[in-house]
Amino acid sequence: MRIIVDTLGADKGYEEIVKGTLQVMKTRDIEVLFVGNAENIKKLVEGSSVDPARIDYIQTDEYIMNNEDPVISIRRKKDASIVLGLNALKEGRGDGFISAGSTGALLAGGLLITKRIDNIDRAALTIVLPSPNGGTVLLDAGANMDTTPEYLRQFAAMGSIYASKVLKRENPRVALLNVGSEEGKGDKRTKESYDLLKASDLNFVGNVESRDLLSGNCDVIVCDGFAGNIALKAFEGVATVVMKSIKEGIMASPRTKLGGILVKPALSGLKKTFDYNEYGAAPLLGTRQPVFKAHGSSNSRALETGIEALVKFIENDVIQYITQDASSIGKANKAEG
Amino acid sequence: MRIIVDTLGADKGYEEIVKGTLQVMKTRDIEVLFVGNAENIKKLVEGSSVDPARIDYIQTDEYIMNNEDPVISIRRKKDASIVLGLNALKEGRGDGFISAGSTGALLAGGLLITKRIDNIDRAALTIVLPSPNGGTVLLDAGANMDTTPEYLRQFAAMGSIYASKVLKRENPRVALLNVGSEEGKGDKRTKESYDLLKASDLNFVGNVESRDLLSGNCDVIVCDGFAGNIALKAFEGVATVVMKSIKEGIMASPRTKLGGILVKPALSGLKKTFDYNEYGAAPLLGTRQPVFKAHGSSNSRALETGIEALVKFIENDVIQYITQDASSIGKANKAEG
Repeated sequence: MRIIVDTLGADKGYEEIVKGTLQVMKTRDIEVLFVGNAENIKKLVEGSSVDPARIDYIQTDEYIMNNEDPVISIRRKKDASIVLGLNALKEGRGDGFISAGSTGALLAGGLLITKRIDNIDRAALTIVLPSPNGGTVLLDAGANMDTTPEYLRQFAAMGSIYASKVLKRENPRVALLNVGSEEGKGDKRTKESYDLLKASDLNFVGNVESRDLLSGNCDVIVCDGFAGNIALKAFEGVATVVMKSIKEGIMASPRTKLGGILVKPALSGLKKTFDYNEYGAAPLLGTRQPVFKAHGSSNSRALETGIEALVKFIENDVIQYITQDASSIGKANKAEG
Repeated sequence: MRIIVDTLGADKGYEEIVKGTLQVMKTRDIEVLFVGNAENIKKLVEGSSVDPARIDYIQTDEYIMNNEDPVISIRRKKDASIVLGLNALKEGRGDGFISAGSTGALLAGGLLITKRIDNIDRAALTIVLPSPNGGTVLLDAGANMDTTPEYLRQFAAMGSIYASKVLKRENPRVALLNVGSEEGKGDKRTKESYDLLKASDLNFVGNVESRDLLSGNCDVIVCDGFAGNIALKAFEGVATVVMKSIKEGIMASPRTKLGGILVKPALSGLKKTFDYNEYGAAPLLGTRQPVFKAHGSSNSRALETGIEALVKFIENDVIQYITQDASSIGKANKAEG
């Protein structure tokens, strides 16, 4: 298996990306195709115990920035790392692609270069949230605005396959993110989506409120990209404020400092639960080849968990299963729509 | 000043509602009109140091449940506590109304009985989020689904008045809840709302992401009720999981228990920050008289802070200021729409 790794455009620089990748290579029998400044990357490879023969390079120093228009940039910046990496994926020079660069550019590139699976109308950014039973799949995390109920039903079908194949859930429970748990709640889109999901052959268990995102009461949570992004970033924001507040509280006096040392085991578990670096990267479900988005602020640990997730995704043939079901997913959609 | 207090329909029962109210009466020179089972309430009043002459009653045992259709129930259940309370408010038997009962019924009652201020198209549930500078106003927290950009602009105008009069902010900074901070982000509604807010005479500072809800970077956050509810409940859910996880971690061993005692001051500050009982109740902004929603799971402390917020709202003539500006808020709206 060969993974294509975009080393450019990440907030914390290429070093964290390369270090995380090399870490995975110590335990996983994978090859890597790095996209970025080959000279810089080679220095880090030389300092590691990884056999340089397992690594190849695509040289570039260009990348797409967050404030650039994604679609225009993908079309015009032919030497941008995401463009080069996705083209290499398309040409079969690797089995999956991962980037911590511009989310918008990766989404646009996933659609324009990698392309969608036939009969799938939209690709969805798919996050695995922490939960007591080992994770809940949430999609769409922000790739699509103004989605239709039909798109949401397709997301639910793809999310079910992901939960089944990667998280090994039998008959995954699908829930709809909504403002109340009762049927009939929500805006026009969620009400119509509720009806579509209820009529589908998915294991639809009804609405879930965002206060229960981490409960593990369901295996797949489906939502419009706007709502999904709002929920996830609220989650991230609160977790950050809480961890900062605990840290400041503990540093406040000698007494609390001592207490902090004693409760450390309790708090480090919490830190791990709320650290997105522990959750790997997010696949763009619906593309013809594996495209993964790592958090923009990824450290080496995030890349490590991200590549692990990408490897599992490839090993479990997720795209093949979605492709097999795509005609019925699409058909059901057209019949309902 | 006389406050009408609905004692029915709260998750934790009438006792918490009555106790919290009596607590405020010890420090605030207010009268209270309780709606509920007068006999039960009187027992609690007798056991307190509050002068019974300051209290009156509307007897009823009926209330609207969360699973009942709000609009139908408001019209048909004439003896429901929310209906009786809001009618008493309308008849001038009190200066404001507060309830911890069905949110849907209170919203419906606020519109059908209390009615909207002329030229205001929708009333918005308005929350004050904790922030380093003493709170950020968020609206709509869930009263309206499928709002238009014009409604959002009106919410922003009302939220600004609230931030100015109650939180005493000069020229309140208004932000739009969105999936990214740059202009041009979001779904159709937020993009159009951005343009409307930019063209308005409000102090519009651009988009805010939900990860910055608690940052204090703005004074008013405006959003559709669906997104607002998703953000708030995610906030609540994460805070609950974090507090539970800390507690369990601390109870895990004698060592962590001792540490827990030492860090208690640090954690109790955190608990207070994330405890909705500390944030009072939420006004329904846009109604002709003050209507406040307390959290369904309110304890006596929540009622206490809620009534304090209601008293401040009345003292600061918020409704009068909105009414004064309503024709220009409405006019601006019609010109834009």
